[in-house]
Amino acid sequence: MTTSKILAISGGVGGAKLALGLSRVLPPEELGVVANTGDDFEHLGMRIAPDLDTVMYTLAELSNKNQGWGLAGESWNFLEALARLGDETWFQLGDQDMATHIVRTHKLAEGETLSEVTRYLCRQLGIEHSLMPMTDDDVRTVVHTRNGETLAFQHYFVRERCAPEVTGFDFLNIDTAAPAPEFSAFLEDPALGAIVICPSNPFVSVDPVLKLPGVIGAMRRSQAPVIAVSPIVGGQAIKGPAAKMMAELGMPLSAEAVAEHYRGRIDGFVLDQQDASLKDSIDSMGIATISTNTVMVTLDDRIALANDILRFAKELSNRSL
Amino acid sequence: MTTSKILAISGGVGGAKLALGLSRVLPPEELGVVANTGDDFEHLGMRIAPDLDTVMYTLAELSNKNQGWGLAGESWNFLEALARLGDETWFQLGDQDMATHIVRTHKLAEGETLSEVTRYLCRQLGIEHSLMPMTDDDVRTVVHTRNGETLAFQHYFVRERCAPEVTGFDFLNIDTAAPAPEFSAFLEDPALGAIVICPSNPFVSVDPVLKLPGVIGAMRRSQAPVIAVSPIVGGQAIKGPAAKMMAELGMPLSAEAVAEHYRGRIDGFVLDQQDASLKDSIDSMGIATISTNTVMVTLDDRIALANDILRFAKELSNRSL
Repeated sequence: MTTSKILAISGGVGGAKLALGLSRVLPPEELGVVANTGDDFEHLGMRIAPDLDTVMYTLAELSNKNQGWGLAGESWNFLEALARLGDETWFQLGDQDMATHIVRTHKLAEGETLSEVTRYLCRQLGIEHSLMPMTDDDVRTVVHTRNGETLAFQHYFVRERCAPEVTGFDFLNIDTAAPAPEFSAFLEDPALGAIVICPSNPFVSVDPVLKLPGVIGAMRRSQAPVIAVSPIVGGQAIKGPAAKMMAELGMPLSAEAVAEHYRGRIDGFVLDQQDASLKDSIDSMGIATISTNTVMVTLDDRIALANDILRFAKELSNRSL
Repeated sequence: MTTSKILAISGGVGGAKLALGLSRVLPPEELGVVANTGDDFEHLGMRIAPDLDTVMYTLAELSNKNQGWGLAGESWNFLEALARLGDETWFQLGDQDMATHIVRTHKLAEGETLSEVTRYLCRQLGIEHSLMPMTDDDVRTVVHTRNGETLAFQHYFVRERCAPEVTGFDFLNIDTAAPAPEFSAFLEDPALGAIVICPSNPFVSVDPVLKLPGVIGAMRRSQAPVIAVSPIVGGQAIKGPAAKMMAELGMPLSAEAVAEHYRGRIDGFVLDQQDASLKDSIDSMGIATISTNTVMVTLDDRIALANDILRFAKELSNRSL
């Protein structure tokens, strides 16, 4: 039996880079990317899905490569006019990006699911690989902070620029949410060859996906190895607040702590070559480990990492036979 | 008793020109402009109010003076992105203009009335005079056409570019709609000195306002003269489909036919100087008539016409004493 399908779990920028690499080495029918939607929020009456959009724009090669999110050649006339009208402008809404939000919001209001809307948007942007939300239900990540305040994720992440000290996270409604149908179908597919946890934030990008009811169970039932790529390299996060969060949560600032966080949920771990010395201690957790270049600067870096992961997945599959 | 307040009834471009003229000669507390909302529609989940916006942008001196509607310096990146996503682009949605639609839609969804939202938007744009929608209810103009089809107004006006031959109009929900509170307050105000029907389309811009329950009754009870400015000059419409509609409805193409249309609802009529020869026949309908320059090219034209109308209103008031 062929076990060629790969399911990648992604947050925003970092995950999207690897998703792009995977999309360059796998044909459309062999790759599915599931994006976190715990970051989604309602803003000015619109449904905004930052991680889905980042992955979508990246796969369509329309993303702003300098900042990692948003669209290349974006303009900001809407936001300026919004400021003139005295409304909130802390969340960056580009003129082109607005079209995505308007179409999504409108189609959701007409009764389409987020999966259906995402499929439609991807088709319009020429994306052939499958991109899916983790759920069609409204799961919302909230951030608990040291001063006792609980913040909606985008308020923490964008409005407060990750300044508050975090003490933990909750994913509202997750107990009653269901994985999106296409996500479930991938997990249950006998042809599933590997599940790749992209180098995204373990706490707020990956955990919401893994904590959806039934996901871990389906991953365990699947023959496919689960491989996580460390978002921590040399004790620092490549992008975003992962390292800051680890410090505030009292965790060591290392890739090893990430592997520990995923322990029991993954079979393989991909370290950056800078962290190769951590291999033995992670191996000793019962997690097979490789080290390679995980810092994706160029498209070639993305493709090379994708190929390294696919090779690693095959090795892990062969070992378990 | 002072009877200094003026209430202007306006559709889009033509009406907005006169409203601007009136705003230049009257202090904020002496002018109210009520705009037609029969043209409003729901588009991509947003509430669009074309006439309100045209008057608002005009009073704020932000309008595109060449085209009469929309904002000066507008950009169209949203609409291009919308086209890329395969959605409807027949209705021009500028990047700056989108901020108005988003704020309005969001505030309406939060339970504010259209009057309240309009007041907020005007304040943000520095408009000191009162601009109000004709109603806070959803009245919708539909156009009946020769081929039997009934079109929502913007579909007729923008999407079909007024091509279908019209046979009549309906204003959906008008029987259960109420004039907006501020509009009613103006009509009942003992200080009301005149009601000015701007040179807007009589059928689709002015009639919806006049046909709201109680409006004609309040106009008749008021001591204030009602003065209409002809939108037909030399047998042609200055702007828009008024003349084409008159032809299709079997009416003579003249200012006189407009006066006839308003007969029983107005006390005074303002002809363009080109049509001065029609004065006697309109006078003979029992409608006092003056002729002046009504073609507003410059701001001075707008101000001059406003002053002519205010003088005419005083004359009519003195006559009736």
